[in-house]
Amino acid sequence: MYKINENYLKLPGSYLFSTIGKKVRAYKEANPDKDVISLGIGDVTQPLAPAVINAMHKAVDEMGKKETFKGYAPDLGYEFLRKAIVLNDYKNRNAFVETDEIFISDGAKSDSGNIGDIFSKDNKIAVCDPVYPVYVDTNAMAGRTGDYLEDKQKWSNVIYMPCVKENNFAPEIPEETPDIIYLCFPNNPTGSTITKDELQKWVDYANENGAVIIYDAAYEAYISEDNIAHSIYECEGARTCAIELRSFSKNAGFTGTRLGFTVVPKDLKCEGVSLNSLWARRQGTKFNGAPYIIQRAGEAVYSEEGKRETREQVAYYMNNARVIREELKSAGYTVFGGVNAPYIWLKTPDNMTSWEFFDVMLNRANVVGTPGSGFGPSGEGYFRLTAFGEYENTIKAIERIKNI
Amino acid sequence: MYKINENYLKLPGSYLFSTIGKKVRAYKEANPDKDVISLGIGDVTQPLAPAVINAMHKAVDEMGKKETFKGYAPDLGYEFLRKAIVLNDYKNRNAFVETDEIFISDGAKSDSGNIGDIFSKDNKIAVCDPVYPVYVDTNAMAGRTGDYLEDKQKWSNVIYMPCVKENNFAPEIPEETPDIIYLCFPNNPTGSTITKDELQKWVDYANENGAVIIYDAAYEAYISEDNIAHSIYECEGARTCAIELRSFSKNAGFTGTRLGFTVVPKDLKCEGVSLNSLWARRQGTKFNGAPYIIQRAGEAVYSEEGKRETREQVAYYMNNARVIREELKSAGYTVFGGVNAPYIWLKTPDNMTSWEFFDVMLNRANVVGTPGSGFGPSGEGYFRLTAFGEYENTIKAIERIKNI
Repeated sequence: MYKINENYLKLPGSYLFSTIGKKVRAYKEANPDKDVISLGIGDVTQPLAPAVINAMHKAVDEMGKKETFKGYAPDLGYEFLRKAIVLNDYKNRNAFVETDEIFISDGAKSDSGNIGDIFSKDNKIAVCDPVYPVYVDTNAMAGRTGDYLEDKQKWSNVIYMPCVKENNFAPEIPEETPDIIYLCFPNNPTGSTITKDELQKWVDYANENGAVIIYDAAYEAYISEDNIAHSIYECEGARTCAIELRSFSKNAGFTGTRLGFTVVPKDLKCEGVSLNSLWARRQGTKFNGAPYIIQRAGEAVYSEEGKRETREQVAYYMNNARVIREELKSAGYTVFGGVNAPYIWLKTPDNMTSWEFFDVMLNRANVVGTPGSGFGPSGEGYFRLTAFGEYENTIKAIERIKNI
Repeated sequence: MYKINENYLKLPGSYLFSTIGKKVRAYKEANPDKDVISLGIGDVTQPLAPAVINAMHKAVDEMGKKETFKGYAPDLGYEFLRKAIVLNDYKNRNAFVETDEIFISDGAKSDSGNIGDIFSKDNKIAVCDPVYPVYVDTNAMAGRTGDYLEDKQKWSNVIYMPCVKENNFAPEIPEETPDIIYLCFPNNPTGSTITKDELQKWVDYANENGAVIIYDAAYEAYISEDNIAHSIYECEGARTCAIELRSFSKNAGFTGTRLGFTVVPKDLKCEGVSLNSLWARRQGTKFNGAPYIIQRAGEAVYSEEGKRETREQVAYYMNNARVIREELKSAGYTVFGGVNAPYIWLKTPDNMTSWEFFDVMLNRANVVGTPGSGFGPSGEGYFRLTAFGEYENTIKAIERIKNI
């Protein structure tokens, strides 16, 4: 008799956003006349940039002609895209990354889940708490996290690094030494980040302790302050301890277009074994590349028009973030984030739990946000709002929240 | 110190097609004046159908307008596509499959590798020999296959089911009972298939012995004979023992466009646990959907024009297959396949090994094929040619082979 992966049965309930979806659907069914505004899931609302649209039309035409038709893509992705990435995301920021260290993918969610494939089951992971649920869930599926302790809302074999108001939402070096450290800056969900100097400390720590950092830089386009690294490879020594995940979802609105990449430096070795080779083998065996049309779309993001147009999108969302932050602050809420990230992280008022506040927001303001506790136990008592809505809706939502 | 997945180190050499690529590059560098024709890797050469091109242009335009822009896709894929699949691929063939049993993906290679995630490490797999290398390699990465025995070119903990001339390339029920059985019909690489009655025996066997079948039907569009199942769900009882993998790569030329799907019936349960739920959890956590534009392209494959146009593509390739088969046969070669599949499987002449014949073909005919031994030990002494080339090149290649 065949056997299933029993680790899946340890996963608590359903994925956070599925639960929210169900609650919202139930409310809408019971209140069909209400206009519910979502500042919940981190999905963008602005259309793709004209430069991207033009590039895709051109690529679609190429696929329709025998002379320019494209079959299987090169294993790592097309060189035109990997070159544009190296130049714009790394060389221009004085970070050394080569084209054969870039692996084009269908997005950072896939990569952040799949990257675990190349590591042994016997690694102890450390995560910021709260954090994007995919890091922990995918490690739970792989059997790395021990058992889920319902009362503590924690896994028994995970090192949680609390990121709370008291430490300015910056993780501290944990007492126990982890093997794999997940860092995401600017952070989802807290919207906070750390300085380049602080990040350098993590790089040094990883190199000194034989740990590897999985660095999720999906929100780097939202960084507005100077002393913050856009890539971990801006830090000295990161090439021997860090893998970086990047996404086109938030900087260019590709949530429904699907494109991302992972950087695995050739200097990253575990007892002489190159992680770049392992990931190349993993992707070459279990993945067949992102569509040609979408890779051309990604290339267009780096064109002059593409850069200008996507910068405008980011500015649009960051204006939303500013409005949410300032308005809620003036209404007496304690708010964080929204300066270098499209997320606003607020303290729930009157010691409400995150889910209690979710219900108040849904029922009394008809606004959907994300309960902080869904991102980890230290998220309890917090609530996430995203700046990815339309401006008009964002204004309306904030007015309603102020009137609760 | 972090640890890598040691199973990767057990994998022999590099992926088959990388080795071929290296040999071909070396030959071309040494002989820059030679015109090398590839009938090697199974990549298509005909442009996408006009119906597909039109659908993509329309979808690209939608992505450029605020009113029609699409962010994250539904977890399982868009319903318009899942409905078209259910109607055309299943209902019209009297196979019962529902829309919430279809999981849209970026292709069958990803799915055939990732499907292993939901199974325990402790399952013994059975594979046809020879076979598409991804099944075995991904199980090796997961630690299911034991050790690679260099002398036998086999893994110690895999059940190999030889498919050779003597048994008409049809696998026989193995002596040892497997937990997971990989079947691919029409078969890659042998181009052979089995009748629906024979497939029914496998379904009965799996149900009786608590095995699960991973059924790869990537080449079903090439079936020309009547008594062959296009889907395993045409067999009675398949809903309680089989997962089916489908691809748009070969029936519609999507190798560079990337789209596929996996069917996991709700009746498929392991001691009460629904595999449909497990796969939904896997995909919901580690995957974020195929691009909207590409899902619209997939929908167009099922439109009336799309069906007509892609049928013409398949006919074009099958004409190549016919030519290769008939011409090589008349030249004295022993050939198989090419009737219900785009692959021709030929016996190497003069007891040459597969790689010896590869070298003869490359050096003396300037034609690239795939050595049968690359697909498994029972492929030794065979050689695969694909029908996916352009007609003119195919004719030229065959003439050269005949003149060796």
